[in-house]
Amino acid sequence: MPPAHPFDDDKLKEECGIFGVVGVADAANFVALGLHALQHRGQEAGGIVVHDAEQGFNSARRFGYVRDNFTSHSVMKTLPGPIGIGHVRYSTAGSKGATAIRDVQPFFGEFSMGGAAIAHNGNITNADALRRDLIERGSIFQSSSDSECIIHLMARSMQRNIPERMKDALRSVEGAFSVVAMTRTKLIGVRDPLGVRPLVLGRLGEGWALSSETCALDIIGADFVREIEPGEMVVITENGVESHRPFEQKPSRFCIFEHVYFSRPDSIIGGRSVYETRRQIGVELARETPVEADLVCPVPDSGTPAAIGYSQESGIPYAMGIIRNQYMGRTFIEPSEQIRNMGVRLKLNVNRALIRGKRVILVDDSVVRGTTSRKIKEMILDAGAKEVHFRIASPPTMWPCFYGVDTPEREKLLAATMSEEEMRKHLGVNSLKFISLDGLYRAVGEANGRDAKAPQYCDACFSGEYPVRPADMIAKGFELKAAE
Amino acid sequence: MPPAHPFDDDKLKEECGIFGVVGVADAANFVALGLHALQHRGQEAGGIVVHDAEQGFNSARRFGYVRDNFTSHSVMKTLPGPIGIGHVRYSTAGSKGATAIRDVQPFFGEFSMGGAAIAHNGNITNADALRRDLIERGSIFQSSSDSECIIHLMARSMQRNIPERMKDALRSVEGAFSVVAMTRTKLIGVRDPLGVRPLVLGRLGEGWALSSETCALDIIGADFVREIEPGEMVVITENGVESHRPFEQKPSRFCIFEHVYFSRPDSIIGGRSVYETRRQIGVELARETPVEADLVCPVPDSGTPAAIGYSQESGIPYAMGIIRNQYMGRTFIEPSEQIRNMGVRLKLNVNRALIRGKRVILVDDSVVRGTTSRKIKEMILDAGAKEVHFRIASPPTMWPCFYGVDTPEREKLLAATMSEEEMRKHLGVNSLKFISLDGLYRAVGEANGRDAKAPQYCDACFSGEYPVRPADMIAKGFELKAAE
Amino acid sequence: MPPAHPFDDDKLKEECGIFGVVGVADAANFVALGLHALQHRGQEAGGIVVHDAEQGFNSARRFGYVRDNFTSHSVMKTLPGPIGIGHVRYSTAGSKGATAIRDVQPFFGEFSMGGAAIAHNGNITNADALRRDLIERGSIFQSSSDSECIIHLMARSMQRNIPERMKDALRSVEGAFSVVAMTRTKLIGVRDPLGVRPLVLGRLGEGWALSSETCALDIIGADFVREIEPGEMVVITENGVESHRPFEQKPSRFCIFEHVYFSRPDSIIGGRSVYETRRQIGVELARETPVEADLVCPVPDSGTPAAIGYSQESGIPYAMGIIRNQYMGRTFIEPSEQIRNMGVRLKLNVNRALIRGKRVILVDDSVVRGTTSRKIKEMILDAGAKEVHFRIASPPTMWPCFYGVDTPEREKLLAATMSEEEMRKHLGVNSLKFISLDGLYRAVGEANGRDAKAPQYCDACFSGEYPVRPADMIAKGFELKAAE
Amino acid sequence: MPPAHPFDDDKLKEECGIFGVVGVADAANFVALGLHALQHRGQEAGGIVVHDAEQGFNSARRFGYVRDNFTSHSVMKTLPGPIGIGHVRYSTAGSKGATAIRDVQPFFGEFSMGGAAIAHNGNITNADALRRDLIERGSIFQSSSDSECIIHLMARSMQRNIPERMKDALRSVEGAFSVVAMTRTKLIGVRDPLGVRPLVLGRLGEGWALSSETCALDIIGADFVREIEPGEMVVITENGVESHRPFEQKPSRFCIFEHVYFSRPDSIIGGRSVYETRRQIGVELARETPVEADLVCPVPDSGTPAAIGYSQESGIPYAMGIIRNQYMGRTFIEPSEQIRNMGVRLKLNVNRALIRGKRVILVDDSVVRGTTSRKIKEMILDAGAKEVHFRIASPPTMWPCFYGVDTPEREKLLAATMSEEEMRKHLGVNSLKFISLDGLYRAVGEANGRDAKAPQYCDACFSGEYPVRPADMIAKGFELKAAE
Repeated sequence: MPPAHPFDDDKLKEECGIFGVVGVADAANFVALGLHALQHRGQEAGGIVVHDAEQGFNSARRFGYVRDNFTSHSVMKTLPGPIGIGHVRYSTAGSKGATAIRDVQPFFGEFSMGGAAIAHNGNITNADALRRDLIERGSIFQSSSDSECIIHLMARSMQRNIPERMKDALRSVEGAFSVVAMTRTKLIGVRDPLGVRPLVLGRLGEGWALSSETCALDIIGADFVREIEPGEMVVITENGVESHRPFEQKPSRFCIFEHVYFSRPDSIIGGRSVYETRRQIGVELARETPVEADLVCPVPDSGTPAAIGYSQESGIPYAMGIIRNQYMGRTFIEPSEQIRNMGVRLKLNVNRALIRGKRVILVDDSVVRGTTSRKIKEMILDAGAKEVHFRIASPPTMWPCFYGVDTPEREKLLAATMSEEEMRKHLGVNSLKFISLDGLYRAVGEANGRDAKAPQYCDACFSGEYPVRPADMIAKGFELKAAE
Repeated sequence: MPPAHPFDDDKLKEECGIFGVVGVADAANFVALGLHALQHRGQEAGGIVVHDAEQGFNSARRFGYVRDNFTSHSVMKTLPGPIGIGHVRYSTAGSKGATAIRDVQPFFGEFSMGGAAIAHNGNITNADALRRDLIERGSIFQSSSDSECIIHLMARSMQRNIPERMKDALRSVEGAFSVVAMTRTKLIGVRDPLGVRPLVLGRLGEGWALSSETCALDIIGADFVREIEPGEMVVITENGVESHRPFEQKPSRFCIFEHVYFSRPDSIIGGRSVYETRRQIGVELARETPVEADLVCPVPDSGTPAAIGYSQESGIPYAMGIIRNQYMGRTFIEPSEQIRNMGVRLKLNVNRALIRGKRVILVDDSVVRGTTSRKIKEMILDAGAKEVHFRIASPPTMWPCFYGVDTPEREKLLAATMSEEEMRKHLGVNSLKFISLDGLYRAVGEANGRDAKAPQYCDACFSGEYPVRPADMIAKGFELKAAE
Repeated sequence: MPPAHPFDDDKLKEECGIFGVVGVADAANFVALGLHALQHRGQEAGGIVVHDAEQGFNSARRFGYVRDNFTSHSVMKTLPGPIGIGHVRYSTAGSKGATAIRDVQPFFGEFSMGGAAIAHNGNITNADALRRDLIERGSIFQSSSDSECIIHLMARSMQRNIPERMKDALRSVEGAFSVVAMTRTKLIGVRDPLGVRPLVLGRLGEGWALSSETCALDIIGADFVREIEPGEMVVITENGVESHRPFEQKPSRFCIFEHVYFSRPDSIIGGRSVYETRRQIGVELARETPVEADLVCPVPDSGTPAAIGYSQESGIPYAMGIIRNQYMGRTFIEPSEQIRNMGVRLKLNVNRALIRGKRVILVDDSVVRGTTSRKIKEMILDAGAKEVHFRIASPPTMWPCFYGVDTPEREKLLAATMSEEEMRKHLGVNSLKFISLDGLYRAVGEANGRDAKAPQYCDACFSGEYPVRPADMIAKGFELKAAE
Repeated sequence: MPPAHPFDDDKLKEECGIFGVVGVADAANFVALGLHALQHRGQEAGGIVVHDAEQGFNSARRFGYVRDNFTSHSVMKTLPGPIGIGHVRYSTAGSKGATAIRDVQPFFGEFSMGGAAIAHNGNITNADALRRDLIERGSIFQSSSDSECIIHLMARSMQRNIPERMKDALRSVEGAFSVVAMTRTKLIGVRDPLGVRPLVLGRLGEGWALSSETCALDIIGADFVREIEPGEMVVITENGVESHRPFEQKPSRFCIFEHVYFSRPDSIIGGRSVYETRRQIGVELARETPVEADLVCPVPDSGTPAAIGYSQESGIPYAMGIIRNQYMGRTFIEPSEQIRNMGVRLKLNVNRALIRGKRVILVDDSVVRGTTSRKIKEMILDAGAKEVHFRIASPPTMWPCFYGVDTPEREKLLAATMSEEEMRKHLGVNSLKFISLDGLYRAVGEANGRDAKAPQYCDACFSGEYPVRPADMIAKGFELKAAE
């Protein structure tokens, strides 16, 4: 259930993880460790920027895993200093061709009062318009990343210091953003007014850390202090943490999918272990969608906690019916036509001796395109299962996310084009059930379920109700859900 | 619970996996897939040899994972032909300095009647004596691997064909060996008279496969036919399988640790899923060593099936209290003194919100040096657990293995120097219990437990009763257990 | 005598080569070949930008040689289109720490009327002031390269098309610059008003090429058309070449050191082979500084043409007394303290059997720090030479260049701190003579030598007379030669 | 004129260079330097073996240049000890497919009295027969290299020490061989009875060195002591040099092509600089084949010394009419169909301004297939030369070499199938002349030319008179020159 997914092509993907520290010796080491712990939020590339009193700003950006790029002495010695920020990323779905290394954050800008670096998790929904305007006025963009807008907006600001310039810049920006930034001496963290994306604060000896998730505080031995609040900016120096409120106050709309899938199970959100929340989703799922069966099996690894919960609530034994190959990397190239079709076997194997003749409940976290679910069903039936019942730990995914998550176009989402019964037939299983939206809200701690008038979370991928208008996408022809 | 272990330094390690196919187009592709599925048996290096009617024998040997070395078109196109064998390996404990690529199997020899390649899983216990004699008579060894003896013995044989030469050679050899070999047209498999190491036969369309485990048959879509029997040699051509019995018949002594840890949970041994056997060990363990607690947590990933069994038998809820970082590779180099001590955090994290205030049963597959067990206990206590109870799914490991498994010297085995109570204190836990040897035998299917006069398995690592005399080691001073 | 120098640390170094083509299929292939031919002008890194109607702008920038980076199909296929420019560079002396890949040209900017890329050979002498002003007004610099100013000045221009914006930009710029630039359809070339750095125009079938030197036209099979004139801008499309004159007209001041050392011997400047000019320098040198001796030996490879000329004029036999190791790369790392001092032997060897007992004239192109000259003298004496006479094919190098050439600080130039006799003693040779400035002017074709009132070339490195005021350097404390 | 050749495909190629040292700290460093100086004798791969009292034998073998493989601390630290040998090689023409790393020398064998390593320059002309016999008797060959026979013959010897075993082995061997070998304490050098291939002895402080050429003594600062004599074996320890004479005495037949092309110009053979010998060949060539012309131009770089001699003898000015691109590596891959034909321009460029309208004498060292000569002629004519006269510094190459030189099959040698006039027409030049065999002998110091009854050199490539019968080749169908 940890965050490497055998079927990356059939999952929603968080696009970024961010991390920063100040007030520690060799900050880059801590940033590298933090990014390593956040690798599940972005596996394509990573970058680190640091500042040192003598050597100034230095940075390194690389494609590939943190463990492969930011561990050698030859790289790390080029990143001295007591303050640093970092970023891990997936490639953006919309970019033409391959991502260039210049698209890898953090971005850096030299202003008249000194340099600043910035790393961003989320998505700017009015970036096209901002970019067009900035170019018109003489800004030179170096990347295809929308996040670069923030740096140019800061460069244009007339404010005298960098935190104030950042406030100016972010007030022009629409969308979901958690930002970690740094000047020569200050570590800055911001969450957008709705708090869609996560950001937490930690204490590390005499220093401080900012991170997308608490699991990255654990790895460096930092204590979790609190979540940065929606709409809050913190400016941290070695002397302490200042809190600012640059935006108009709004009710929070945290991304509910962080609970379902994105965050690591050992992270803590809202005071509760993500693992425990997911197990609770399994419990709710068992209550809502019971079925007679012999075994409850997770689709590894993301379905595991919900499968445990389902088993515990239903009393049907939990079993590892599908085994993942731990040595599967992203580099395996199927070597010939002949065996190209066995792709799935490279990653998963069914525990045949266990499954044969059994009625199996398969618990997965979500269904996106459905391509993987079909393949897994086939493997299970090939192995001799008598019945296959899919239970999904989230409601049907029917709408794309525009807030920093890589989702297919709407037409490719299985649930956007089929009813539940059509999906069941399409997948060829004995039954297929999803948790209800209310059930999911209960599992994440809202005893009364979803407040339809003022939803407590961002659940646009399920409900089609977008808390921030996706202006650029609408300009490109995206149609919002018709008002009911 | 699949086979990548966060604490490789504190586990017994199977030293090799072997695989071969004949009668298929592009045999090398199948061998690569098979080795990928056997990667848990040897992560350091891999090699493939093939034969093609036009291009003759070709081979490739590389350090690193199969997925990284044997997938590119540029490598695989150099390996044409319908017959091939392969090998994955750990480094041998005894070799001085780094392993050279020339130590990577399969080994190849050109005889007067043509070439042959051979790959070996196991260990030759009289290799030193054989080697000395062969050098005296003018053989040039190219590797430090004992397995090379077999090729030289074959070169010295007066027999007219390669299978007969191999019989000659293997009759001189003592120890544990499963061998896969090939000539231009024949695929050959052999198990030693006691059948210590595994070897299975599969059918792949019109062709045949030999593999250490059934999981590698699954990945290529081959059907499991049967296990090669102890003391059997099979000679396979496109026309079929011939069975030979070159050795004197003896009662089987299969390695019981294959059940405990070495084999993949989705492999089938003796008609039963390895996963199910391990779950059953957990059931026996719960019966033998009950304790009051709030949660049963596996030490990931190898303790998982036994933890599930323990939970099911005891009724204490199963929970993922320890989370593994999926992006941990073997290449992470801790970047500074300052954080070197946090090694364990790079690999594992405790689910703090779950563990706090709880009485936790930790289920692990074995205790070797005990170094890891101590660290895990500390992490669990740091996270606020109220009590920690270790339950181990194998008896105390007290003797080194000389049959192809990498074990520390006897003095470094915790159980060789301490009583169970001393170990408990050393580890600093509330209780520590191992499954009994009889309990283990029951779990693997021997309803009456171990037959002390004629043990059904090789369990030398627990009992000190070595079914084949370790001649070379005794010559180097190793002392057998005193007769009782 | 081609342009790879065994003692790169003791030579002035041209900092850049530039190249561009339009109107050809797969422009990038031609750019790569052109840059390969210009590699002597910059060995550290290279970059190529192309434009394709469908795929837009694409670029690749790499450290290392062109032949290693821009030849594989995997790279070149990412660079489609009929128009492209490229750049090779040395690292800039002034940059702190290692050059980042973002400092590698061409630079690219997206303007409201479309993108443009620009590559620059030379140096902007008021870059600091320009940069400060641009940052103040909100421009974000992405590199430490002064050349990036041009792109930002263009972005700020109010002109409606890119050539006009470039004129605006270059009118603000002081210094020496030859520029190759491109839009989606236009290839643009500019030389500064004094024409300090070279730029030539070639015809390639239906297309056109711009290049620092003619040798790069030869490699692609293009015909040399003419030199771009000082102060001229050419705008080339598939339809032909438009000539513009954006700057005030001034007398030309071409860099005389291009004749002495920078350009390749097979290039043509001012209608004459550079090789022939250098041979002529040797002839003048023999006339001005005769000496009795047995052999004339070049310091390989840059001293070779002048040594041939010296031999022909003096009648003293020419001989290869020093042999270069052709396999010397820049990657040889002396492996131990013990042999670190034999550095020079890795690169050169004296032809001992030839030199022993001889009076040897050594001809070199220039003396910068003098460190190499000392080592060579020692090698020659160790080999048993009776006398060593240095003859230098340029006047004493006494002033740094601020126009795109990497020179040491003034204090490190041997001739800036010593008289000729002091230098002779310092080097420990029997005689040391330099060609006179007038002799050099005669050799390059000025029959009456140098016009002291209006020098025909830029010879600031010898004379201290800087044709463009080095404003940034003066601001940093550099002192011009006192008026006489 | 150093030894990297722009047209490797049209030259005879020496196949190996060998080097060894004893009695120095960190022998591997010296071996690496020596091999670097011998790189022209073999560019494909290199290997080093060393012995250290504590660490035993260690080795490293790599494809590519010495400077790229044997310079990093990480490699060199694995090669400790005061004694070592090394080898550089071209690929053997006869090997099927790509050379494997196991074919890279030195070869190593473990004998009952200890290990030995051996490196070989030359060719064993009865290797096929030896190999067949050894395999029959149970030897396992690890390489396709004939040189491995020597190690197996040594293993079969009944002698008590390694030098005696080597004598036994080499007495069975026919062909040309210079050998450098080592035991734990002894450095051994041997030349075959005819002394076809070179080997020299040097003194390095308290230690000793063996090398193919003296230029490799120069690079490590060793003094040249003497040549190893034909048929001599030297056994060197820290205590000194013992000389043995294991073979029947015969008149020497040193390879005359070492003078023409193989050896480095700064090496000394027979007391005279190779450069000077080549210059003298040019002098003889001018005497034998005069022609009226304006310029004498070398084909770079191997024609340079002879061109200098030709110019000096004829009085026609020497000029660099063809310029080599110094940045040409072997890795340049022509990127597209369109420019594939410009291959030669990647490597060479004609100095057009110099050549136009001139009568040009081109001096080259040899003509093998003639493919390159044609291309160069075309370039010269394209550049506007009025006449082209080829002068070749060796007689027509009409026979393949079987003594360690890579030559094409006889039918591909231009001079084997055409008369001189036919060759002239084929090449399309105004005249084509070769030095006579007598002229060549005079130039290398035989005042009376070649002794037809007892030639002083091996000149089989010119004369077809093979001093050692090429038994394996005759068995494969090669026909010797008919007796006259």
